[in-house]
Amino acid sequence: MSTTEKTTENAQLKDIISHAKEYGFVFPSSEIYDGLQAVYDYGQNGVELKNNLKTLWWKCMTQLHQNVVGIDAAIFMHPLTWKASGHVDSFNDPMIDNKDSKKRYRADVLIEEKAAEYEKAGDVERKQNLLNQMARLLEAEDLKGVQELIIAEGIKCPLSGTSNWTEVRQFNLMFSTQVGSVAEESSTIYLRPETAQGIFVNFLNVQKSGRMKVPFGIAQIGKAFRNEIVARQFIFRMREFEQMEMQFFVRPGTEMEWYQHWKTMRRNWHEALGVPAEKLRYHDHEKLAHYANAAVDIEFEFPFGFKEVEGIHSRTDFDLTQHQELSRKKQQYFDNDLNEDGKPYGNYVPYVVETSVGADRLFLMTLCNAYQEEEITEGENTKTRTFLKFHPAIAPVKAAVFPLVKKDGLPEKAMEIFNDLRFDFNMIYEERDAIGKRYTRQDLIGTPFCIAVDYETLENNTVTVRDRDSREQKRMHISELRQYIGDAVSFKRIFEKL
Amino acid sequence: MSTTEKTTENAQLKDIISHAKEYGFVFPSSEIYDGLQAVYDYGQNGVELKNNLKTLWWKCMTQLHQNVVGIDAAIFMHPLTWKASGHVDSFNDPMIDNKDSKKRYRADVLIEEKAAEYEKAGDVERKQNLLNQMARLLEAEDLKGVQELIIAEGIKCPLSGTSNWTEVRQFNLMFSTQVGSVAEESSTIYLRPETAQGIFVNFLNVQKSGRMKVPFGIAQIGKAFRNEIVARQFIFRMREFEQMEMQFFVRPGTEMEWYQHWKTMRRNWHEALGVPAEKLRYHDHEKLAHYANAAVDIEFEFPFGFKEVEGIHSRTDFDLTQHQELSRKKQQYFDNDLNEDGKPYGNYVPYVVETSVGADRLFLMTLCNAYQEEEITEGENTKTRTFLKFHPAIAPVKAAVFPLVKKDGLPEKAMEIFNDLRFDFNMIYEERDAIGKRYTRQDLIGTPFCIAVDYETLENNTVTVRDRDSREQKRMHISELRQYIGDAVSFKRIFEKL
Repeated sequence: MSTTEKTTENAQLKDIISHAKEYGFVFPSSEIYDGLQAVYDYGQNGVELKNNLKTLWWKCMTQLHQNVVGIDAAIFMHPLTWKASGHVDSFNDPMIDNKDSKKRYRADVLIEEKAAEYEKAGDVERKQNLLNQMARLLEAEDLKGVQELIIAEGIKCPLSGTSNWTEVRQFNLMFSTQVGSVAEESSTIYLRPETAQGIFVNFLNVQKSGRMKVPFGIAQIGKAFRNEIVARQFIFRMREFEQMEMQFFVRPGTEMEWYQHWKTMRRNWHEALGVPAEKLRYHDHEKLAHYANAAVDIEFEFPFGFKEVEGIHSRTDFDLTQHQELSRKKQQYFDNDLNEDGKPYGNYVPYVVETSVGADRLFLMTLCNAYQEEEITEGENTKTRTFLKFHPAIAPVKAAVFPLVKKDGLPEKAMEIFNDLRFDFNMIYEERDAIGKRYTRQDLIGTPFCIAVDYETLENNTVTVRDRDSREQKRMHISELRQYIGDAVSFKRIFEKL
Repeated sequence: MSTTEKTTENAQLKDIISHAKEYGFVFPSSEIYDGLQAVYDYGQNGVELKNNLKTLWWKCMTQLHQNVVGIDAAIFMHPLTWKASGHVDSFNDPMIDNKDSKKRYRADVLIEEKAAEYEKAGDVERKQNLLNQMARLLEAEDLKGVQELIIAEGIKCPLSGTSNWTEVRQFNLMFSTQVGSVAEESSTIYLRPETAQGIFVNFLNVQKSGRMKVPFGIAQIGKAFRNEIVARQFIFRMREFEQMEMQFFVRPGTEMEWYQHWKTMRRNWHEALGVPAEKLRYHDHEKLAHYANAAVDIEFEFPFGFKEVEGIHSRTDFDLTQHQELSRKKQQYFDNDLNEDGKPYGNYVPYVVETSVGADRLFLMTLCNAYQEEEITEGENTKTRTFLKFHPAIAPVKAAVFPLVKKDGLPEKAMEIFNDLRFDFNMIYEERDAIGKRYTRQDLIGTPFCIAVDYETLENNTVTVRDRDSREQKRMHISELRQYIGDAVSFKRIFEKL
């Protein structure tokens, strides 16, 4: 990527960030106290968009699939959960501090940046050598070696300009806190770094109380927390974020079929929501996590490049087996379907295929994809129209009702329409300012339909309905509105594409 | 309350807790690791019920009220937020430890229990004296005095049986954790103990970006955390819980009208959801919090007595003024409506009326209210039928479809009906076991309608629809199902009662 391109793309992200703030989508957290790094709040339009995305995902998972149910596990879990999952021992980033600036860095990121410099200078071989060397050292957990490599490469702190580095230490990304009622027993618990474990520890509770038959899935939406050292790119990487995960429990040996199934299904879902196919791609993991036997990311082309929005992972029986060992409680399923020999498959620990999408990343993808600027010529003037082209089913506000003028009974008529529809749809009534300005305001928050009440309405009960994307106005009878809007915003239209 | 009554009521709560676990409503958190005290997970039916309650509250707040919008602020906030709100300095419980058992107690609870003993022994005066004495000491923050009182009253640790007490200390109920990327600047932040402050710090962001005019409200649903020492009564008092709060910003001097308005509105809401009026009562706060000039609880009669489900508080301008002072950013609104003198009201810090309901308490109230046991006589046998009488709009599953038998094309016909309706409603298809058993299973999770497909269905496309509450079966055409179920489960029917 050339510098100019990079600048343009950062400029685009900046536009989106400032649009998000100005129009009530995303505010920096605790902004009156100058914010809290890598934490954001969703504003009045953002929360509606996010809730629509979450509800759509939830319904797709649970209502579309007879064999998927949901749960909502707590953020606090028994600390042994994270021992079993491996997070206590190895959910680490290698950190190094510069003694002069007191600034902390991720050691691997420093080395990657150095490698990128070699590449920029045309020395691809040197770049690759450096990366390989780092990979070997990290693999061997040779932190002393990593520090020596940083010094040998002459890497300097951008702030102090010195190579006066501390040793490299592993830094666990889990947030911890103290809970307890007994003086000498106050215990350390963690804010969950992923929601998946809440599903695993409830596997048998759900299977038994819900009489679920393998293959079946458990879906969950909830907050997770990671003490990211390098948190950046707006809401893409936050310290507090929301996951939408589904763990699908299958008979061992069938996991690859299901992995393919969910890989396709989940990509289709993003396309059904209006993301162009060319903006999405699969990225197979080259190096698999210790628990996985296959893993792929669905990436979206953000202004800062192709990045992961969702991951599909074949997690084997790793998690359930770990919990079985640590809790000494069997995590098995009795499968009475018959195998090739005519005998029941019997007891086994199921394999798991996971789909995991970041709700905030999905939100950012949706916002980036919806953000449109178009040149409009009106007479001699050309101006830029900015609008958010959300799929109507997820738009924060479905329709706005405007009286053309604030007199002659038009507001009353408009209010009648508003009152008739507002139980069905999230609606806005607006009578302030010229109607052109009101259209613009709805464009900026992505409202698909604007209903205008004019003098003709008083005569024949027809209104104009303006389409956000084409700006065309269509005249229709008031009695047609519910169905017209209802069809456009219905989740069914998305379901049918899957 | 006599001991027998207490036992009966505890037995009822126990029945509900075990029903909640057995039928997938609420599981103890991390149960395979023997649980985490005062933390619970919602199972496959619980999450649907909870989501329905949350969505209903959200739509009532935001869609029914043109001047109320939502937000979703992060759990992590800038620590100064909690300095401003007073939580850092005074969100404390007085704690005392017994040196022999090492067990920690709330000092005020120990004294209250002693007072209850006096009452039981008929000495009401002594009880009142003791409570007054404690109140005076706590008011004066005389912790030494509280300790002396405990010793003077001969209060013993139930575990060790000794009076070997430590001094009384204030224990802050906020959970804290460390966040940070810079070595020497890692800072302490808190898990929010209430969601309200996320609304206050965003007051101007929402008002400006949404062009809101006072009076207006901001609604929010989200998790909050309190390190409760005495956490009990199932999901009534948890360390991690969910709040649904709305802060309504009004012109100073009008707050009492709005307080009355919301007090009535919120009680109506609970009744519209099917809670009998006699199970609800108002409880005015005798002692107001430092920020309030009026406060009332809406209490429900739980198996363990009348307890708070929701609070309505007139919080004055306390919070916004505190944030204004600490952040040095004006938290004012310019009101250009005209006063009696024909001049704009101008700049002021709005007053706030808050409605705050615990989502988990609402869930527990709904479950307790729905839990029904009735005697049924079938021929010579009498048996007890247990069923959950949820309002259809919030029932986890709206309808189940059953083929009478598993042959002759009945399953296919039933599946056709299921597939036609499942995009509109959360549905179950079930063909295992005798149909009576299947009805029972739906009763136990509170499904309002069971649709049975029999041989007549194949002839004339009619089915029977069994009503959960009356157990009556009605024959109707398949084409009528969508409207029949739709009307019953529609939020509109609840909205219309408000």
